[in-house]
Amino acid sequence: MKARKIVDEMDSYVPGRSQDEIAEEFNLNKDEIIKLGSNENPWGPSPKAMEAIKKEISSINRYPESQLKELVAEIAKYSSVEDNQVIIGGDGADEIIDVLAKTFIDEGDEFIVPLPSYMYYEYLLQQYGAHPVYAKWDLDKNELDVESIFDSITDRTKMIFLCSPNNPTGTLIEKEVLADIAEKNPEILIVIDEAYFEYSEVTNKDLINEYDNIFIIRTMSKVLGLAGMRIGYGLACAEIIEYMHRIKPVFSLTRLSFAAALNTFRDEEYIKESIKKGIESRQYLYEELSKIDSLNVFPSKSNFMLIGVKDTGFTASELALELMKKGIIVRDCTSFKGLDEYWIRISICTLDEDKKFIEIIKEVLS
Amino acid sequence: MKARKIVDEMDSYVPGRSQDEIAEEFNLNKDEIIKLGSNENPWGPSPKAMEAIKKEISSINRYPESQLKELVAEIAKYSSVEDNQVIIGGDGADEIIDVLAKTFIDEGDEFIVPLPSYMYYEYLLQQYGAHPVYAKWDLDKNELDVESIFDSITDRTKMIFLCSPNNPTGTLIEKEVLADIAEKNPEILIVIDEAYFEYSEVTNKDLINEYDNIFIIRTMSKVLGLAGMRIGYGLACAEIIEYMHRIKPVFSLTRLSFAAALNTFRDEEYIKESIKKGIESRQYLYEELSKIDSLNVFPSKSNFMLIGVKDTGFTASELALELMKKGIIVRDCTSFKGLDEYWIRISICTLDEDKKFIEIIKEVLS
Repeated sequence: MKARKIVDEMDSYVPGRSQDEIAEEFNLNKDEIIKLGSNENPWGPSPKAMEAIKKEISSINRYPESQLKELVAEIAKYSSVEDNQVIIGGDGADEIIDVLAKTFIDEGDEFIVPLPSYMYYEYLLQQYGAHPVYAKWDLDKNELDVESIFDSITDRTKMIFLCSPNNPTGTLIEKEVLADIAEKNPEILIVIDEAYFEYSEVTNKDLINEYDNIFIIRTMSKVLGLAGMRIGYGLACAEIIEYMHRIKPVFSLTRLSFAAALNTFRDEEYIKESIKKGIESRQYLYEELSKIDSLNVFPSKSNFMLIGVKDTGFTASELALELMKKGIIVRDCTSFKGLDEYWIRISICTLDEDKKFIEIIKEVLS
Repeated sequence: MKARKIVDEMDSYVPGRSQDEIAEEFNLNKDEIIKLGSNENPWGPSPKAMEAIKKEISSINRYPESQLKELVAEIAKYSSVEDNQVIIGGDGADEIIDVLAKTFIDEGDEFIVPLPSYMYYEYLLQQYGAHPVYAKWDLDKNELDVESIFDSITDRTKMIFLCSPNNPTGTLIEKEVLADIAEKNPEILIVIDEAYFEYSEVTNKDLINEYDNIFIIRTMSKVLGLAGMRIGYGLACAEIIEYMHRIKPVFSLTRLSFAAALNTFRDEEYIKESIKKGIESRQYLYEELSKIDSLNVFPSKSNFMLIGVKDTGFTASELALELMKKGIIVRDCTSFKGLDEYWIRISICTLDEDKKFIEIIKEVLS
């Protein structure tokens, strides 16, 4: 069978290694591996979410609700928006991006991403025949090169992806900048990825009431502690949400994801504590890592930070390997377009894990 | 924002009612509603799956594995195929159909569905700009009108969807017919939906070794008791599977779905018992319903059966409403293309529920 031209021209699929395989290769105890690679909440899920899942287990032979009205209402409350400004994705924010593409992207459209940023936008949008146009994140100032966005716009631009705080650089894009881009380009959808907004204590969600071309992406995979349950959501004007509902997968959120999501939003204490501890860990890691002369540590408004390792004598891949041998997983950023082979990204952990990591990275670098 | 033309021309999204709302409207106790509408396994999930979920709950803050190798191996074993002939979907079979479309469908392609059949093929494929061409299921003989398939083929046909046992008619398509269609149309993908194959004790999966244009869809939502966890899989030649992996969502299967799936396949006793009890329930329902003169009950090789209700004096929608008032949910098939307004579909239940249903439908029809 002949696949579509786009699929045929893609790189072949090369399966990655599972954590079990990694643990085996490096002779590690899987439970003792410290995971600083995936920007998760290291304190585990909400106890209320776990309780709710237990109560629901015996019903998993039944299809999920398709409407999710109770969860929509809870998200609207959490986000201070109206119910009809919310859409829920059953594969995390990734499904939201996919449905966005399916709703708005025609073959040949262009989308803009400032590099470096989250790579999955491109992975998904190219499947719909859209072409990436790369703008720039200014690494020296660690801020968006706003001019590079305006310079990248053509009459084929359909979307601009702006991640704030940006992954992997960690800093924010100013609200005035976002509003200005939306204001000047009413025909282009400005997609603001707020996967990490809780850690920055800043949101741009109020812009959806002013601009009908702004879409906010959110996820429960980060501070909300549910990466394994694949729940994302989007906020936008009611018209966009209605279009997206026409083609959204009907049952993609599992019953247990629904229960977990609902009860995490209702666990305000858990959310507050997770943010507080996350910010403490970030500060600790930033301070300790900054003391290591050979590391170029970026300040961050998120739950991760970008680190330049050029002066260590290691490439990112070499350093990641040395750390892996000692049971630490960090993100080698070589695969991020817009970064060379000298950057790693680490995420917050519990204070004990933070300390162990600092100890081990000092050991590796000494 | 302007949506794609295809989306813009679709019907507006009208939210359905949740089970809570239905229970409230008819003043029903939600736990006592008998669900014959969704072809689920009424005996609940595998106890081993439930245990495995409980053990995994505290890890749901971590991303799932992306490779799913252990589960791929388990599915390959269950299906007697090779690991590289398996792909897993994180939104049930629906995700498998979506990835199939994304891999093979170009705008303007045609696909063939004999009516009536599962409506979601069309819902998904039209999003990719493909056009449905309707062949025919012969309701008088309750078998596929094979000639109508051959007559529907044009040089734009990309896929033919053949559900066996067919939903909602319940009977099988003969393997020789499927092989013949594949043989004569090497450029067309023959998609055989085996969502219900366990109840028929017949599979066509061996055809994937003979034809590289056959794709088998399977699900864990039916006999395997995991509708709420959204797990589907596909079987085909390694080349097709490799193409699909290039564009498949990376993390769409939740951690708990993974645990549930793995341990359900390992629970052979549960699977065997579920099939046995399902077939018993089907026989009981068929015999009892056949005694009611005004019902035209179709024999079935699946876990549901189609019933013509024209002679009852009710339309399907009226009859479904009367049953609903008494706490019974059946599937009003009016929305199935290819059926008029006089068909309902019911699925197997526990013997106690079966008996209660028979009692109530007799009451309603008397």
